[in-house]
Amino acid sequence: MIVRDFHDIQKNDTDRVVSDAKWSSTRLLLANDGMGFSFHITVLEAGSEHTFEYKNHFESVYCMKGSGSITDLKTGQTHRIKPGTMYALDQHDRHTLKADEELFMACCFNPPVTGTEVHRADGSYAPAEELA
Amino acid sequence: MIVRDFHDIQKNDTDRVVSDAKWSSTRLLLANDGMGFSFHITVLEAGSEHTFEYKNHFESVYCMKGSGSITDLKTGQTHRIKPGTMYALDQHDRHTLKADEELFMACCFNPPVTGTEVHRADGSYAPAEELA
Repeated sequence: MIVRDFHDIQKNDTDRVVSDAKWSSTRLLLANDGMGFSFHITVLEAGSEHTFEYKNHFESVYCMKGSGSITDLKTGQTHRIKPGTMYALDQHDRHTLKADEELFMACCFNPPVTGTEVHRADGSYAPAEELA
Repeated sequence: MIVRDFHDIQKNDTDRVVSDAKWSSTRLLLANDGMGFSFHITVLEAGSEHTFEYKNHFESVYCMKGSGSITDLKTGQTHRIKPGTMYALDQHDRHTLKADEELFMACCFNPPVTGTEVHRADGSYAPAEELA
């Protein structure tokens, strides 16, 4: 059994925290935990906007706190995000996420993120085999 | 892109809600969503206690609200659960979960739950191939 705490990791295990100026992701589970998925708590700054396209991963995102929206860049459709909303990028959907208020999100990735990925210019993470 | 809402599903899509008197699980993603994991919001009643052993699944659980504890029944070790705590049953660990206050948990299962599982006498879910 693995037991970890979001607040402890943010303070003491910064290898598991990836961030830029307007975004941070705390990785509670990574590929080497052997669960077959990774699990992240991601916080997006109020007023920020992010475009991602996880070409090599499926991702689900559950909103725990805050408000914003997600736009599917293929269809142009925008969905409101509030506590209780989940979106799942089952088509590796290119999307823009906007945080009207600070957003606290619980995210699952399959395949699991290894922890060394960075967002590339196209908004994707590299597939695991390119990170070895 | 799949977009679903916890509160809408609780009201309008009760096929996705599994519950007993002291426990309910709202399945936002199931096996047929094709993500390779399932994602559930599970609410455990204050004062309740639950013993599970997912022999055929890995599960991670993140506490969003409430307080309680988890006991690893192999080692006897008990861990406190509060908002920000995550536990992952990477050894299919038999465990007892106690809710001191009502617990709101975000849960991921691999392999994904199909939606027809019930807890068996031993606290497990059947493997997917027995549910066809």
